[in-house]
Amino acid sequence: MGQNLTRDISFPLSSKKRSLLFVFIIVVGYLVKQYVAEEKRRKAAQKASSVSSDPERGRRTKKIGVDARFFAQVRKLLPICIPGFASKETVLLISLAMVLIARTWLDIWFSGFNGHVVKAIVSRDRKTFIALAVVEFGFMMWPMSIVNNSLKLTISALSLAFRSRLTRHANKNYLKDIVFYKISNLDNRIQNADQLLTQDIDKFAENLSHLYSDFAKPLVDMVLFAYKLGEAIGREAPIYMIAYFVGSGILLRALSPPFGKYTAIEQKLEGDFRFTHSRIIAHSEEIAFYGGGEREQIVVDGSFDKIVRHIKKIYRLRFINGIIDSVLVKYCATMTAYYLLARPVFDPRYATEFMGKLDADSTKIMEDYSRNLNLSQAIGRLILAGRDLTRFAGYTARVAELFDVLEDVNNGRYERTIVNKDANEANTSKVVSQNDLGGKIVARDGVIIFEKVPIVTPSQDVLVKELSFKVETGMNCLIFGPNGCGKSSLFRILGELWPLFGGTVTKPSASKLFYVPQKPYLALGTFRDQVIYPDTKTMARSKGFDDSKLMELLDVVQLSNLIAREGGWDVIRDWADVLSGGEKQRVAMARLFYHRPQFAILDECTSAVSVDVEVKYHEWLLRFDGEGGYEFRRINEDDLATPLLHPHNKMGKKKFAIGQDDDDMGEYADNEKNSSSGSNISYE
Amino acid sequence: MGQNLTRDISFPLSSKKRSLLFVFIIVVGYLVKQYVAEEKRRKAAQKASSVSSDPERGRRTKKIGVDARFFAQVRKLLPICIPGFASKETVLLISLAMVLIARTWLDIWFSGFNGHVVKAIVSRDRKTFIALAVVEFGFMMWPMSIVNNSLKLTISALSLAFRSRLTRHANKNYLKDIVFYKISNLDNRIQNADQLLTQDIDKFAENLSHLYSDFAKPLVDMVLFAYKLGEAIGREAPIYMIAYFVGSGILLRALSPPFGKYTAIEQKLEGDFRFTHSRIIAHSEEIAFYGGGEREQIVVDGSFDKIVRHIKKIYRLRFINGIIDSVLVKYCATMTAYYLLARPVFDPRYATEFMGKLDADSTKIMEDYSRNLNLSQAIGRLILAGRDLTRFAGYTARVAELFDVLEDVNNGRYERTIVNKDANEANTSKVVSQNDLGGKIVARDGVIIFEKVPIVTPSQDVLVKELSFKVETGMNCLIFGPNGCGKSSLFRILGELWPLFGGTVTKPSASKLFYVPQKPYLALGTFRDQVIYPDTKTMARSKGFDDSKLMELLDVVQLSNLIAREGGWDVIRDWADVLSGGEKQRVAMARLFYHRPQFAILDECTSAVSVDVEVKYHEWLLRFDGEGGYEFRRINEDDLATPLLHPHNKMGKKKFAIGQDDDDMGEYADNEKNSSSGSNISYE
Repeated sequence: MGQNLTRDISFPLSSKKRSLLFVFIIVVGYLVKQYVAEEKRRKAAQKASSVSSDPERGRRTKKIGVDARFFAQVRKLLPICIPGFASKETVLLISLAMVLIARTWLDIWFSGFNGHVVKAIVSRDRKTFIALAVVEFGFMMWPMSIVNNSLKLTISALSLAFRSRLTRHANKNYLKDIVFYKISNLDNRIQNADQLLTQDIDKFAENLSHLYSDFAKPLVDMVLFAYKLGEAIGREAPIYMIAYFVGSGILLRALSPPFGKYTAIEQKLEGDFRFTHSRIIAHSEEIAFYGGGEREQIVVDGSFDKIVRHIKKIYRLRFINGIIDSVLVKYCATMTAYYLLARPVFDPRYATEFMGKLDADSTKIMEDYSRNLNLSQAIGRLILAGRDLTRFAGYTARVAELFDVLEDVNNGRYERTIVNKDANEANTSKVVSQNDLGGKIVARDGVIIFEKVPIVTPSQDVLVKELSFKVETGMNCLIFGPNGCGKSSLFRILGELWPLFGGTVTKPSASKLFYVPQKPYLALGTFRDQVIYPDTKTMARSKGFDDSKLMELLDVVQLSNLIAREGGWDVIRDWADVLSGGEKQRVAMARLFYHRPQFAILDECTSAVSVDVEVKYHEWLLRFDGEGGYEFRRINEDDLATPLLHPHNKMGKKKFAIGQDDDDMGEYADNEKNSSSGSNISYE
Repeated sequence: MGQNLTRDISFPLSSKKRSLLFVFIIVVGYLVKQYVAEEKRRKAAQKASSVSSDPERGRRTKKIGVDARFFAQVRKLLPICIPGFASKETVLLISLAMVLIARTWLDIWFSGFNGHVVKAIVSRDRKTFIALAVVEFGFMMWPMSIVNNSLKLTISALSLAFRSRLTRHANKNYLKDIVFYKISNLDNRIQNADQLLTQDIDKFAENLSHLYSDFAKPLVDMVLFAYKLGEAIGREAPIYMIAYFVGSGILLRALSPPFGKYTAIEQKLEGDFRFTHSRIIAHSEEIAFYGGGEREQIVVDGSFDKIVRHIKKIYRLRFINGIIDSVLVKYCATMTAYYLLARPVFDPRYATEFMGKLDADSTKIMEDYSRNLNLSQAIGRLILAGRDLTRFAGYTARVAELFDVLEDVNNGRYERTIVNKDANEANTSKVVSQNDLGGKIVARDGVIIFEKVPIVTPSQDVLVKELSFKVETGMNCLIFGPNGCGKSSLFRILGELWPLFGGTVTKPSASKLFYVPQKPYLALGTFRDQVIYPDTKTMARSKGFDDSKLMELLDVVQLSNLIAREGGWDVIRDWADVLSGGEKQRVAMARLFYHRPQFAILDECTSAVSVDVEVKYHEWLLRFDGEGGYEFRRINEDDLATPLLHPHNKMGKKKFAIGQDDDDMGEYADNEKNSSSGSNISYE
């Protein structure tokens, strides 16, 4: 018997197969070597990056896998994807479940049907053959194809539904107040938020929807096939099978590399690469003037190389991992199927018990076999799905982080890695939360008061220890000082863009302060949208600004011709491209006139406007010396000698304005550090 | 017989199935209604957009499908993906082909193997069963899993290889000279190039690599299975089958909607959506100051809604299309398989001929059946692959357009849609090519001469008809005038950013002209990279600038402390974030000193520098009146009265500089339109 067995064993190993075996051993040997080397490199890289100063790197090495943290993240994201039982998503999930059941039912039907057709052929039964192969199949193929395509449709629809929910939720929180500003300027946990808001959410939603069916389908299969099989070849058969697969599942989980982390890194690298390109577009003119194209190419290619290296690594690992998986799961499933099929035939105990059921007719066996195979493959797919979770964990981690940061910043809490001035010390990650902020903001009309307000940059550089001054409506104040002295910072604090770390700021509500930046911002939309920005058409109407009223504003800034030129109020153009520099600034002034604020903050925005809008001299002076000191006083005669502030006084009805700018004013020979400019504007 | 047949027909329609049929008829009815409505809407939309003024729209409706244009595009892109026979890509393609053959061979082996196992069970042959199910299968599962995983690996590797080739090729051409600037500022065929350079190339490469295997695998299957079958059930069987599928393939092609175009639109919409986000990041401060968050959300959500609507439409069409496909291809394949299988049995002609070969033992029939099925499915897959071509055409169209534009712009040819000032006329798409440019550029050291040079914007606005002036080294010229008078345009023409439409510009080679922008550009990299930008470390060394020499430059602009502060020359930081406004401008000056140009163009960049670097007054004046007129003359006494140009003369060794700026200078009361500033710098 042993003899026979060995003969039997040697029989399948033909010389062809033996050579195949040889090749295969070499291949596997090589791959395992690769694999081990890879892991070594990975560990080394981790060590290196963990001591690196780059905060991103530090974040990258944060473990990402199917762990408590992952499930917590999913628990947080799911309610956003599926807001409630009454939601469209629930309907889709239920119908997907139904489609899956229908499909399994059809599979079972088909596995039986095949047998019958063959039987009909063998038994030369023409009528039955036609009835089966032509009529029944010709009818059943319709439900089959509908069910299969419904499956695809439902999964896609589900993925889209999830994406919509997540995107809208993210957009809402991202664009609420000035969260988007804080995320890109104050909090530095997230690089290129646009990648997260578009790409990553999409990927997450897609994976989530597939995940559901990847788990649901095999589960449904398991139950139904196990039942069918139990009938045929004994209740415990399926149980043994499931037991085997649970075991191998655990084994697989232990063997597989941290694909979740790798996916997250891949997404991160794709984002970085995209960023190198978008910043070139943003700075195209400077780079072009510098002739920096080649230089930028080095950066871009470098960033792309990182992606390539990383992806190659993942592929290698997937390959080796895939081999182990398919052997443990797919093929052992088939073997188990064979065994369970053979058991009743060979095992005397079952033989007696099942002989009745098992007729010699092999079509019956084929049927059992294919169902058996279906069952084991179902469980196999289930395990693989479980393994894919780790990859899904990668997308989850990235999206979850986005939503965490959004929540934090919405609650006035932000994190920032402070680049330590002392190179020897490590960089510290500073967390600022609403409570840390000693500052107080008091809303009051007609006055701006700074009381002992420290001017501090987000990177914690103190520009002015304590700034105190008071301007009331009608006081026209000029601010000047060298670069980085705190002029812009002052405005950012006034505009509540930056946190107020101490002191008290008394000022009117945000709607009554209006900022006119140097480079006017032009929104996507019609020309009306430009003038009434950030209001909508309806808001403008409610304020009594119909198009004729808006046209009056354009007359003031001499842009009325523009409407005719561009073809009306409702034409959508790339305005940044269509309008000249001067026209842009006039638009900004029209915008100011539209909003009629109590205070206007003019950021050297008057070059084109000065022509048309009357200019009055400033009475007050807020001057920074660029070394933390400042003075706030009435403008005196010597100041007035400087032509910038020369009077040419016209009519009344003044509005107050703070003006600032960054360019060199030679006339302050006494204090070369200073720079200045500014003006205030008035209209009927 | 007819009687019997009808009975046979009625038999499979159990009440359960009848109700199923009912449901199914309703569903299909509904879907077809949907489909027709959808098509109507599509046509209407096309009509609408074709008369729209939006050039993008116009482009979108350009037919995209598997046509001559598509193959031309592929012919153009393939050589980039596969540079030659000796390339890595060829090796991958060949190995992929080999893997595919191996896989088909294994499939054939398995279809036979299954039969044997069952046979062994039926015939209670324990030894053979063990030899087969345990030994042979236990051995063969290794090559099977290796082959299957190799298939995945090779496809992924191929996709990555294609992507690398395309990306590097695109980057090279995109960043050559100032192509990137021209594409985003002169040519407006391409919106958001970053989307094309990252996302779309990736998608194209992935689809291309899959396409190969999608075609190759079924082809290999067809040949091998057809051969095997021919042996079993007659040569002509496979031929009939193939004939049927070719027919249905043509039918499918005719039925399917223009998925190619839809894919292209989808990618476009995704790009637009991404753009709405990236521009918010770019303008975060202005938007924050304006409190425009809610307003922006309307835009972002609107852009996302477009995606959702479009994708939903695609899904619906895919669903209906999928049903037709699977019926025509997949299930009819099965039926044909049945028929071919049954033919020898029932058809007397074949009966006699094949009885010998066809033994009653049904495992043999099962074997034939499964091979038969494999063959028909192979052909089915082939047809579906052909259908998927249309989707692939979408990605091809986008990537091909990118490469076309890159090529055009590299050859100095660019297209631009001119927004027609007269609203009634349609917008014209103007093509500018090197030949159109009447202008001549002459390289000569130490002098800048403009002879009858028209100052014309890319959107064809003529700012100055003919500008003529001459500055030599040592002449210090101040340029001023109101916004949009042509100051920036003059520099863009001087920097060869904008095309020279006429006249002659005589100037030194680009490397001897240096532009210092107002907002200094900071590259990604070390602090050394900032100072020597756009040079690389090695280039700097070759110029004799080692770190100690660079440190001297930093001393001049008083930044030497920075190196210690930030931890040395080689630390990589987000410098835009780390450096203050003043520090940034000092970096720009250090950069200027490093490059030692013959001419420096200073764009109000001296505010912080004036403190440390000596400033001398200008001798010459180029003044634009903003209405096409200008004057070029020596600066006289009255000009000197203006304090901007007051003298405080120090040491020698002057360098020439053109300065310009855009802010309001009240002192030119005589001509309020004017604005000015500017300076020149010197160092030891």
